[in-house]
Amino acid sequence: PLRGKHDDRSLVFADLTREEYLQVQQYMLKQRDLNIATKQITKPSENFLFLIDLSLPKKADALAYLDGKGNKPTREATVVVFHGAQGCIKEYVVGPLPSPKYHRDVTKERYKTELPITARTVTIGEYHLLFQFLETEVFSKLEKVMKESFDVGKDKKLNAFEQMPRGVRSGDRKTWISFFRDMSGMYIHPVGFEVLINHESVNASAWKVERVLYNGQYFDTVEELKQKYNTTSVKKIVYKESPDYGSLKPKNKPLQIGPQLFYAEGKRFSVSKNHVLYLDWSFAFGLSSLTGMRVFDVRFKNERIAYELSVQEAMSVYGSVTPGMILTKFLDSSIGIGRFAHELVRGVDCPYEATYVDTYRYIDVPTPIRFRNSICIFEHNMGQPLRRHFSDFFHNSYGGMVNSALVFRTITAIGNYDYMWDFIFYQSGSVEAKVHATGYISSSYMVDGSWKYGHQVAEKVLGNIHTHFINFKVDLDVLGVKNVFQTKDMEFVNVSLPWMPDHYAMVPQLVENQLKTEKEAALRYNTKTPRYLHIASNKTNRWGHQRSYRLQVFSFTGDHLPESQAEEKAMSWARYKVAITKHKDLEQTSSSLYSQNNIWTPAVDFSKYIDDNENIENEDLVAWVTTGFLHIPHAEDIPNTVTVGNGGGVLLRPHNYFDEDPSIHSADGVYFGPG
Amino acid sequence: PLRGKHDDRSLVFADLTREEYLQVQQYMLKQRDLNIATKQITKPSENFLFLIDLSLPKKADALAYLDGKGNKPTREATVVVFHGAQGCIKEYVVGPLPSPKYHRDVTKERYKTELPITARTVTIGEYHLLFQFLETEVFSKLEKVMKESFDVGKDKKLNAFEQMPRGVRSGDRKTWISFFRDMSGMYIHPVGFEVLINHESVNASAWKVERVLYNGQYFDTVEELKQKYNTTSVKKIVYKESPDYGSLKPKNKPLQIGPQLFYAEGKRFSVSKNHVLYLDWSFAFGLSSLTGMRVFDVRFKNERIAYELSVQEAMSVYGSVTPGMILTKFLDSSIGIGRFAHELVRGVDCPYEATYVDTYRYIDVPTPIRFRNSICIFEHNMGQPLRRHFSDFFHNSYGGMVNSALVFRTITAIGNYDYMWDFIFYQSGSVEAKVHATGYISSSYMVDGSWKYGHQVAEKVLGNIHTHFINFKVDLDVLGVKNVFQTKDMEFVNVSLPWMPDHYAMVPQLVENQLKTEKEAALRYNTKTPRYLHIASNKTNRWGHQRSYRLQVFSFTGDHLPESQAEEKAMSWARYKVAITKHKDLEQTSSSLYSQNNIWTPAVDFSKYIDDNENIENEDLVAWVTTGFLHIPHAEDIPNTVTVGNGGGVLLRPHNYFDEDPSIHSADGVYFGPG
Ligand SMILES: [Ca+2]
Ligand SMILES: [Ca+2]
Ligand SMILES: [Ca+2]
Ligand SMILES: [Ca+2]
Ligand SMILES: [Cu+2]
Ligand SMILES: [Cu+2]
Repeated sequence: PLRGKHDDRSLVFADLTREEYLQVQQYMLKQRDLNIATKQITKPSENFLFLIDLSLPKKADALAYLDGKGNKPTREATVVVFHGAQGCIKEYVVGPLPSPKYHRDVTKERYKTELPITARTVTIGEYHLLFQFLETEVFSKLEKVMKESFDVGKDKKLNAFEQMPRGVRSGDRKTWISFFRDMSGMYIHPVGFEVLINHESVNASAWKVERVLYNGQYFDTVEELKQKYNTTSVKKIVYKESPDYGSLKPKNKPLQIGPQLFYAEGKRFSVSKNHVLYLDWSFAFGLSSLTGMRVFDVRFKNERIAYELSVQEAMSVYGSVTPGMILTKFLDSSIGIGRFAHELVRGVDCPYEATYVDTYRYIDVPTPIRFRNSICIFEHNMGQPLRRHFSDFFHNSYGGMVNSALVFRTITAIGNYDYMWDFIFYQSGSVEAKVHATGYISSSYMVDGSWKYGHQVAEKVLGNIHTHFINFKVDLDVLGVKNVFQTKDMEFVNVSLPWMPDHYAMVPQLVENQLKTEKEAALRYNTKTPRYLHIASNKTNRWGHQRSYRLQVFSFTGDHLPESQAEEKAMSWARYKVAITKHKDLEQTSSSLYSQNNIWTPAVDFSKYIDDNENIENEDLVAWVTTGFLHIPHAEDIPNTVTVGNGGGVLLRPHNYFDEDPSIHSADGVYFGPG
Repeated sequence: PLRGKHDDRSLVFADLTREEYLQVQQYMLKQRDLNIATKQITKPSENFLFLIDLSLPKKADALAYLDGKGNKPTREATVVVFHGAQGCIKEYVVGPLPSPKYHRDVTKERYKTELPITARTVTIGEYHLLFQFLETEVFSKLEKVMKESFDVGKDKKLNAFEQMPRGVRSGDRKTWISFFRDMSGMYIHPVGFEVLINHESVNASAWKVERVLYNGQYFDTVEELKQKYNTTSVKKIVYKESPDYGSLKPKNKPLQIGPQLFYAEGKRFSVSKNHVLYLDWSFAFGLSSLTGMRVFDVRFKNERIAYELSVQEAMSVYGSVTPGMILTKFLDSSIGIGRFAHELVRGVDCPYEATYVDTYRYIDVPTPIRFRNSICIFEHNMGQPLRRHFSDFFHNSYGGMVNSALVFRTITAIGNYDYMWDFIFYQSGSVEAKVHATGYISSSYMVDGSWKYGHQVAEKVLGNIHTHFINFKVDLDVLGVKNVFQTKDMEFVNVSLPWMPDHYAMVPQLVENQLKTEKEAALRYNTKTPRYLHIASNKTNRWGHQRSYRLQVFSFTGDHLPESQAEEKAMSWARYKVAITKHKDLEQTSSSLYSQNNIWTPAVDFSKYIDDNENIENEDLVAWVTTGFLHIPHAEDIPNTVTVGNGGGVLLRPHNYFDEDPSIHSADGVYFGPG
């Protein structure tokens, strides 16, 4: 039996439907002056409709509508066109859906700058040309080297894995491509062959091989390698078959299945369209092709607690002696995090009995694609009490309650890595955003000096040291949008004992502060931050304390990148464990689609949200939370990194928000009196 | 189908059986010269047999026996006698079990000092006298005050809750007793009446009321309060019925039960005596009445990874303006952590289908007591993959495995708080020690100045700020006992790019160190510690790296106590996130039974284990890990603190210990090839 009712107003946050994508696509194609192509292998020199995604309504409009004080906001799409013909990228807003009548170039409005075409994500169309280029300009010229070193021939190829950023300064589009054995888990099968391709021009005919690395030795051209290979000046790699250590095939047969979850009396949650009801909780959800999963209008007992909770960015910085990874800094939302939310496997990725939801996306495709079962929603028995007390003094009694919570999950497999994203809704009124990493590590071929950059994990394979940094947007609205940012901590104070005043003792006191500006509230990772961080209302609970939600960050991050580096601006959000900004519709994300390929002059530099140092007292506050972990790969990362211990997150917990623990009203409570 | 076989050699770590306790008790009673009493309300002035517990064998002896190289070590008990008649405490070793023939005073050997009788735990016998004393010296003299203020009368009492330490210097035994309404969850029902009792003498006739606190006002005697109460100089508390906000009785009826765990094909683990088998894991277990649960001889694929993993201490420091809590520093192992491992409730504390184990204890009792179902062991489906990868590039395939792990759990309800202790055994070769807090907070009656020390959580009730510090002993033996302590971290280094040497970039490098001495390896909480901590062997894995286990600490601790405070010596373990010592049989615990009541001159000062600064290279190393959290109570702690977010722990993970992730051999793996 469900409490509450589904609410179709959640649809203002819904991803576009298949029909809506098609309508927008058709509308854009009709704009003859834009001269847009949509075919899969559109060339970089043409104008390509790269992305169609929901354009979120303005928060004020959405709130007015949700709260019954305004009309439904106009539904609009964001369209990204790579104008290869004009040498720029444009973002358009197209509306109203479902039957678009207008489009508007919002590039300048959103990014305060033009977007150069070199900032674009590499499309399947460009990959197509790159692979052709590699074939004709590299492999066909090096048949002997490739055969002898890697057994490459008619029926055996190498796989390419490219590194980013593509160069060292704005405008560069020079990509080191590393080659891997064509085996499962190719990412841990490097062969020691890497090629630097300059593909800056939108005309593939202008592309060049700029450098070649073979077995740790550099060559200016393919020809140079070919020539020197036949002399003694090249240390040759002699082909040797490699064991299939990247395989995920089970090595043992199941004899007895493990513990399973079951709903003896059915599900206690319900999913209707993009709206979820679970006990006291309700929320709307969506999956941005770029930033990934997100929930909106999160309510507990019908009171809105958060307007938005969303994944923003997943970033990794690598260390290596090899060129393919020496500069690597991945910014996944530039490739698309939600884009890679594939089908979830029942019984492994989520319990069998979970509810699975399909999503539709339009990114780098000719037509919208359905991703079956790409979101799962389930209630899980956490295997522990949420609370309990046994009393054997004075009153013999027991009261407790098992911790059953709702999990909202996607898993995004972005190349080698799989990130598991969880939003968890607890009966105590807490919400948790969690991320875990699994999948394959990135690796490089062992050469002299490799051990400074990681550990060897297989024959001639180095698992390279790297960081994982994740950014979440947490737009809590505690009793409305006007909130303050509070910190609480302890401090030992020397006090005289009241009953023996000449005796002093150090006693912990509560230290509370209200931070007034964005700069004060940008809490850097390398500084000591107060232990309790709160988004609070000035309204008080029954006991006179400001009602608040506390942010508790779980993190094992390394260092992100020195600010001296030009690339740091594209990841400046990672400076802060928590940063609080005044909400702006135009500060929707902490990163952007254009950060990866123009990392030196990124379209979004998060630190600028703070630079204007606005007042954050009684304003609509947004918390940007960074978590992650330092990853020093080790043999046990082969074949896959395990989730246990490899994650981070943020727990949003009521702190004087209620007058008592709301779980006391749960029907899951159990009580025994004295027997 | 189980792998491996149960091994009775685990019994060297088994707690005493009922028969063994009785044999030891009878043996001690037969020693006429010791003149020992065992009755429940033995007086403090008599000699009381307080505790019988397993005396752990010397590690070298146990290892020799386990490894088939030595005889079974003699089984012995530790007996603690409070020699009230002699004014001291003695520890005896009694053996051999099951038929004791000798006893030996080991007090000096173990503690290098005599133990004064004032250092003893308050026994039920002493409580009995204390309650009598309160009745005759306080309540019976204050009938009018008690009736008018608290409705105390013939059929209605107040409950007492005492605070520790009992005074301010060695030898003190002066206890502030606070009074609480006789309702469920009394700990959150303070009434504003506290009494300081001097019970230093073992003769109750010498006990005195030294101070009285009523509604924030101090009185030197009960008589003074009585007298002034009838004048206008006392601000009176006028009795008012209090709502039953501490009740754990469900307020709603269950309509639909939540998700449950089931073993469709039976349990995949087995418990025989004190030995557990689970897939590749095996271990022995025990439950010390004092320090709590512990496991020994933890093996994975029959290779010993840890000799001991055990709970050591749970400590809390409180802040308050009221005398009852201004000095409070609880050291739970002095009362007994394992002592309070009560029956676990099926379906709440552990899943219904868990295996439940009884334990027997002898602490402050006249006869051994059975605690039914006080340990639970179950395999849990963690609701997430342990690892997975979906590949849509080049090779379309999916491989993954659900995270099913074995949980070994006790929950100890020590007065107001319930600690849930978990040791979790993962299929990836990791073991996790976790603790969560739930139960009732401690509270004090609101008076002027209270808000500096916490938050109000009910009418006239302050939830006092406090810390939770937990210490675990982690005696890893990585391929034998000779190990080293390694740290690993990252560091950005400015390097020239090999293919464009005039361009420099900051690239993360791996920084490894081997710490040589105990002082170097005592990693303080208030300093920056390297991110990776390893107990390593000098033996290498297949790829040439030292085989190691990494310690990953999850912690949200506050500050423990300034070292200027005399009481700090009894909790000096809390200075360190991780401290590494050379193993010694005489350094069995980081705290002691005698720490709480002689906190200023504790029998064990952990920092002394480090003071001799021994070399820790190629030695038998023990890691002492401190975790915990700062607790600023809030309304949602009423009635009970929830486990979510209120915990800490340490994850022991293989790091180059294996040549690959051992979970790849699990039969739980799932794989799909291209369809
Ligand atoms: Ca701003
Ligand atoms: Ca907000
Ligand atoms: Ca030492
Ligand atoms: Ca050891
Ligand atoms: Cu990683
Ligand atoms: Cu607490």
